[in-house]
Amino acid sequence: MASEQYEQGMKILGVIGDPEGKIVAESLKAIDELAPGLSKSVVEFVYGDIYSRKGLDLRSREIAAIAALAVTGSKPQLTDHIITGLNIGLTKEEIKEILVQMTVFAGFPAALSALATASEVFAMWDEKMQEIET
Amino acid sequence: MASEQYEQGMKILGVIGDPEGKIVAESLKAIDELAPGLSKSVVEFVYGDIYSRKGLDLRSREIAAIAALAVTGSKPQLTDHIITGLNIGLTKEEIKEILVQMTVFAGFPAALSALATASEVFAMWDEKMQEIET
Amino acid sequence: MASEQYEQGMKILGVIGDPEGKIVAESLKAIDELAPGLSKSVVEFVYGDIYSRKGLDLRSREIAAIAALAVTGSKPQLTDHIITGLNIGLTKEEIKEILVQMTVFAGFPAALSALATASEVFAMWDEKMQEIET
Amino acid sequence: MASEQYEQGMKILGVIGDPEGKIVAESLKAIDELAPGLSKSVVEFVYGDIYSRKGLDLRSREIAAIAALAVTGSKPQLTDHIITGLNIGLTKEEIKEILVQMTVFAGFPAALSALATASEVFAMWDEKMQEIET
Amino acid sequence: MASEQYEQGMKILGVIGDPEGKIVAESLKAIDELAPGLSKSVVEFVYGDIYSRKGLDLRSREIAAIAALAVTGSKPQLTDHIITGLNIGLTKEEIKEILVQMTVFAGFPAALSALATASEVFAMWDEKMQEIET
Amino acid sequence: MASEQYEQGMKILGVIGDPEGKIVAESLKAIDELAPGLSKSVVEFVYGDIYSRKGLDLRSREIAAIAALAVTGSKPQLTDHIITGLNIGLTKEEIKEILVQMTVFAGFPAALSALATASEVFAMWDEKMQEIET
Repeated sequence: MASEQYEQGMKILGVIGDPEGKIVAESLKAIDELAPGLSKSVVEFVYGDIYSRKGLDLRSREIAAIAALAVTGSKPQLTDHIITGLNIGLTKEEIKEILVQMTVFAGFPAALSALATASEVFAMWDEKMQEIET
Repeated sequence: MASEQYEQGMKILGVIGDPEGKIVAESLKAIDELAPGLSKSVVEFVYGDIYSRKGLDLRSREIAAIAALAVTGSKPQLTDHIITGLNIGLTKEEIKEILVQMTVFAGFPAALSALATASEVFAMWDEKMQEIET
Repeated sequence: MASEQYEQGMKILGVIGDPEGKIVAESLKAIDELAPGLSKSVVEFVYGDIYSRKGLDLRSREIAAIAALAVTGSKPQLTDHIITGLNIGLTKEEIKEILVQMTVFAGFPAALSALATASEVFAMWDEKMQEIET
Repeated sequence: MASEQYEQGMKILGVIGDPEGKIVAESLKAIDELAPGLSKSVVEFVYGDIYSRKGLDLRSREIAAIAALAVTGSKPQLTDHIITGLNIGLTKEEIKEILVQMTVFAGFPAALSALATASEVFAMWDEKMQEIET
Repeated sequence: MASEQYEQGMKILGVIGDPEGKIVAESLKAIDELAPGLSKSVVEFVYGDIYSRKGLDLRSREIAAIAALAVTGSKPQLTDHIITGLNIGLTKEEIKEILVQMTVFAGFPAALSALATASEVFAMWDEKMQEIET
Repeated sequence: MASEQYEQGMKILGVIGDPEGKIVAESLKAIDELAPGLSKSVVEFVYGDIYSRKGLDLRSREIAAIAALAVTGSKPQLTDHIITGLNIGLTKEEIKEILVQMTVFAGFPAALSALATASEVFAMWDEKMQEIET
């Protein structure tokens, strides 16, 4: 039986991930293959707890996430949260500007690497959008 | 003679810093004491160039800045940008939530240290606000 | 009503913190003053979830924690986990050796800073132990 | 003529690396191709000096190493020390749990990247074990 | 119309990059594809402003750049600045020694990764030099 | 009986530290108080081995050290190596310029913090120089 917090986490993931939940389900399965049961922590703690706290809208949360991931240099997770950002309505330009601003706070190397990741993600995204349209 | 970019930077600093420019002037003087001429780079590059780019509003820029500074663990600069955040209308709760979210992306130690800094800054801020009111 | 996970987390904190729970209660209260409700996340996620996972004993978990905190350079949290380490039976010499080994993986500056923190914590600890004895 | 410290280092490498010394010899040769003579520093300082210090068993040293390398995000070195960990008797589950715990201290991105590396290393390891058995 | 600072930046890039400016032009174009107008910031701020400051020769600036990039672990940018280092007369041995020294300040993993990058860059460089000679 | 490498390390420390060896002796004693025998590793590995490698002059080694320590944010060690830099003939201006350049590679917060440390060190240094003169 799922805890309330798990259900709340899955609700958030329905909003910021894909509504049918197919991609979310795959991601959670991949996490459990890395460490059994860890997907439960991700759903409950990350989305059911932290992302569900009051006082900050999802758009602002994703801006903070993208900035943080550019600084830590975590490419796979930055990829995921750029997609989340697009899902919840951040424009490509806004995402690029968040990363450009990291030149000031973390230096040009961190910012340029993150911008290169964003370009790759946007290309994948555009391709996927075209597939859906046709 | 000030460059256009310098003037643009000072305009942004008038919006996100203090309107009378007294605190901004002191900050720039302090930077020049660390390295002669470096305040010119801060005004021109950071504010006249990066912060003046189109495509992202100031509120979002400060959210990104606060998240990045929590991750890098730069206390004096995090202090400055929490104040900037308050100046441009981020609420204390919003700032705290940006930092709480860093538990996910940079771990509890980084988030808790940043939250401790925020508490100190808010106490100073409240004191200053009370002084102004009286 | 406390969740099962919260109760499990408090049980772990009883083992690795102080048995009477006075210091633990103070720490959790301090965390809630930084961000309301965050202590619940600490108890549930950090101790009720991650620390309660099977497959690794508490001694090994604290070794990993101390090594990680030396690398990230988080002094207050390193302080807390050195105390936890002592509580669960790591010797002072073992803790120092974990930190000495960080010279290899994170360089001398990180290791020497962490060793300086450990020396401070051990001095506090010895003083407290003497108070208890008398 | 090898120094005592070099001999001591090679002895440790015989315990934590491969007993026949073939893989160790290849690693040291690879290091010398990166920088002439650097393998001597690795043997003497890392293994003959730091790893040979009293007061902490090898199992604990490898736990600390794996935690540290997950935090610094050094994939090739994390790979090496996961293998070392398996060589000296850490179970796959224990190694995964060390990395899962890094969610708390360094955030989910660092932990998930390290877990992905561990999965790759375990697959290689299982393949090699099967080859040996047949 | 290019600003004075832009012209000064391009002058520096002529000295530390390729004299004909073909590779520099390609790099700047690649940066603008990541974020429109960002190449202007690179030329004006990085080279026209910081690199053009008095008080430190270019050789010393590149030593500092290479050391910093080894510590931050930025492979593409480390690659660029190793090439810049060779362009302005640092020997391969000197570059390797800068990176070997990082064992002390940032640990063996950071140093060994940077040395592996340097070996790749040197191999490319030697190939290019042979092409030019023939 | 001191090893050859130890003697070589002490020779380097005589050049880059104080010629009478009083400050060096105090530093080594302080390191041994943090972890018994660790000063031997510092002398043998850091100075007798790495700093004694051929192919890079001491001036360049200190530039690399100062840049690296600004990026890692290690204040006590940055303090030590700024003093070492002054001892071997780097000017205050050169040291400041190394740190100013870190704005590009590690962002403004890292550079400004390091510059603040440098200002403190220079003030101490000037005071000490005046004492010696009188």
